[in-house]
Amino acid sequence: MITPKHHIFVCTSCRINGTQQGFCFQKKSVDLVQKFTQEIDERELYSDCMVTHTGCFGICEKGPVCVVYPEGIWYGNLDEEAVERICEEHLEGGVPVKDYQI
Amino acid sequence: MITPKHHIFVCTSCRINGTQQGFCFQKKSVDLVQKFTQEIDERELYSDCMVTHTGCFGICEKGPVCVVYPEGIWYGNLDEEAVERICEEHLEGGVPVKDYQI
Repeated sequence: MITPKHHIFVCTSCRINGTQQGFCFQKKSVDLVQKFTQEIDERELYSDCMVTHTGCFGICEKGPVCVVYPEGIWYGNLDEEAVERICEEHLEGGVPVKDYQI
Repeated sequence: MITPKHHIFVCTSCRINGTQQGFCFQKKSVDLVQKFTQEIDERELYSDCMVTHTGCFGICEKGPVCVVYPEGIWYGNLDEEAVERICEEHLEGGVPVKDYQI
C-alpha cells in the first residue's frame, strides 16, 4: 500500500452502531468531506492526497475537525472557506494554515 | 491538540449515510477496534496511542485493514492475534509487524 503524501481524516461522527448524530455531523462535516474531495480533484492533487471520514476524535467542542497525516496537523472550526485554504496553502503549497490549527 | 505517538485508524466500513455493510465491518472489524483499545489499555499505552474507526479505504480485498500514523504503516487481513502482535511489537516495541503489512 502506498501511503499518500497527505492523508486527511475528517470527523463525520460515524458511530460503530451505524447512527450519526454527533457534533461534527450536525455541523455539516459530510459536506466538508465532499468539499475536500472536490478541491483535491480540481487542483489535480489526487495522486498525493487521500480523504477518509472517521468517527469521533473526542474534541467535539472544536468541530468540525480534521487531522492531516503524516504531519499530524489538527484543524478545527472548519467550514468551506477553511477547506479551500487548507487545500491551497497546506496540501498544494506545503504550509499549514495557522488560522485553523487547534 | 497533541498528536499521539501512534494514531491507529481502523476501517469499520462506516458510511456517510449511516449504514454499515462493508467488507471490514462484515469481517468483525468493530471487535478489532475494541481489541486495540483493550490491548492499549492493558499495556498502559493510552498516553501514546489513539484509536479511531473510519470509513472505507478502498482496499476491501485486504480487509480488515488499519493504518498507523505518522509512520504510515498499513496492515491487512487483521484478526485478534494480529492486533495483539501490532500492539506488542509495533506500538510497544517500536518495530512494525512485517507479517501483516500490506
